Amino acid sequence: MIHISIIGMGLIGTSLGMALRSASKETTVLGEVTITGYDHDQRATADARARLAIDKSVKKLEEATHNAQLIILAVPPQALRELFVAMAPTLPHGTIVTDVASTKTQVMAWADELLPRTVDFVGGHPMAGKEQSGPAAAEIDLFKGTLYCLSPAPRTKQNALDVVDGMVHHIGAKPYYIDPVEHDSYVGGVSHLPFVLSTALVEVTNRSPSWREMAPLAATGFRDMSRLASGDVDMHRDICITNREALTRWIDETVVFLNEMREYLNTDDHEQVTDIFQRARESRETWLQNRPNMRPGESEYENITGSAVERPGLFNRMLGMRGPRDKRP
Amino acid sequence: MIHISIIGMGLIGTSLGMALRSASKETTVLGEVTITGYDHDQRATADARARLAIDKSVKKLEEATHNAQLIILAVPPQALRELFVAMAPTLPHGTIVTDVASTKTQVMAWADELLPRTVDFVGGHPMAGKEQSGPAAAEIDLFKGTLYCLSPAPRTKQNALDVVDGMVHHIGAKPYYIDPVEHDSYVGGVSHLPFVLSTALVEVTNRSPSWREMAPLAATGFRDMSRLASGDVDMHRDICITNREALTRWIDETVVFLNEMREYLNTDDHEQVTDIFQRARESRETWLQNRPNMRPGESEYENITGSAVERPGLFNRMLGMRGPRDKRP
Repeated sequence: MIHISIIGMGLIGTSLGMALRSASKETTVLGEVTITGYDHDQRATADARARLAIDKSVKKLEEATHNAQLIILAVPPQALRELFVAMAPTLPHGTIVTDVASTKTQVMAWADELLPRTVDFVGGHPMAGKEQSGPAAAEIDLFKGTLYCLSPAPRTKQNALDVVDGMVHHIGAKPYYIDPVEHDSYVGGVSHLPFVLSTALVEVTNRSPSWREMAPLAATGFRDMSRLASGDVDMHRDICITNREALTRWIDETVVFLNEMREYLNTDDHEQVTDIFQRARESRETWLQNRPNMRPGESEYENITGSAVERPGLFNRMLGMRGPRDKRP
Repeated sequence: MIHISIIGMGLIGTSLGMALRSASKETTVLGEVTITGYDHDQRATADARARLAIDKSVKKLEEATHNAQLIILAVPPQALRELFVAMAPTLPHGTIVTDVASTKTQVMAWADELLPRTVDFVGGHPMAGKEQSGPAAAEIDLFKGTLYCLSPAPRTKQNALDVVDGMVHHIGAKPYYIDPVEHDSYVGGVSHLPFVLSTALVEVTNRSPSWREMAPLAATGFRDMSRLASGDVDMHRDICITNREALTRWIDETVVFLNEMREYLNTDDHEQVTDIFQRARESRETWLQNRPNMRPGESEYENITGSAVERPGLFNRMLGMRGPRDKRP
């Protein structure tokens, strides 16, 4: 039996609660789970409760922190500093604290500075999300099969790390241990640069005086490339601010690339232009080959085979046939 | 009865054939349609025939051009010049020729220079596509509800334009008449800049010495933003080369934006960073509101209500209820 409190009933906090409460008792690593939810917006807590993400809602931060064994902070990165300050005096010895922020270096530094030495902090970052935000967008399977970055602080005790590791397994994700600086550089490239480029596309087309005439011509390519620009504004800002250094390097690399492309176009260098598109296509194909569940439209397939592994009889019944061995002469 | 020849059995050519042949005889604008297909790759022609995209396949270009009333050139932009030269001597008086290339200024100039004065040319560009290429990726509904840009040459006769306009309606698309220079500038922003940015994302992340460690962290955001980089390499190159001027301007605008973003980040200008993300989110929301069939996941819904408009009885039957008026007391 473990008491978990989730602070912040947004997309991630609510999805975490749903996933934690729904894990079957047979396969659970943590044992039985009781979840308390808190959000400064009481409607969000009520919504999360209605979605069965929490067992109990509380109206004060202290009620969520003073007797939890594990506290998950699911608030935007910029809100974490203040939250550490507010909760620090309420935390009993041995409390385990983790967060879900998309940047880790700044957050680890705040935790080290502001949390009492008597609690254990493990930085966390689930590699899952969607452009919608809030408890209404939460999904019970949001973390299934995804990676979950973990950065324990240097003085974090092993048993605390085991609990957070267990929580990650409990929701169907895989722990990925990583240094905070490396984490920020990597996700800067594969997660933050994408939403900056998506925003760039929307901004530069909308700035054009011809946007009204262009807009009807924008089709699925534009829609998909602009999707991330619909993400949560505060989260995007917080990520950019707390990951300024890594993101600046990625922006610079992108400008270098765009200027190369411009140069090749204007010197009519067909070969270089072809090479770029060829290489990008192959690189993406290789990435997809290593990540079969990323193949668009194949997620349903994965879900089917995923449950089939647990219940092999079901798979055969679904296919309406016996196994291959039965067919041998 | 109209004889149509499609040159090029790729994604667009094959999808066009499928859409043209499947339109119901009652609603057709062109009357009965017979389609001849040609591709320099005979396997592509065979595949297109197997997918019921053409009535007849031919092995020589001339067999496709010498007795067609309407010829649709569905080849990459850069192949068009050579194709115009090759087909010019074979075209009877009054043949109507149209293309599907993503850029129009260069293509219109080639047509004007290379086609005989006795044929009518209408530049065309269906605003539909997907990242897969070839006849196997073709879809019968690829053009349904989409816009189809048309740029008639100055000396194109009205009856020729009527035929191409009719062909566009026939496949369920809507004609969008546009000047070739404006076309290239607009699609440069909403269609070509997106695949350049998608390619930029794949290139700059893959150039990093840490790519191997980063790759497992790349999730759905990266997947969606890199999707267009998997598009056809030759098509991307041809589009870039033939739309060099407009695309260069869009690249420059993007570099300006990225440098602004960099500046705001490094001067810790939270307000400007927030404004950018806020504006982009709102701009995209407005665009989506004007394009309801672009809302992810809602395309099926639109298809249902779309057919219901034509056959109101069906809609009520599907809902299993009578109309709202029947419920009045």
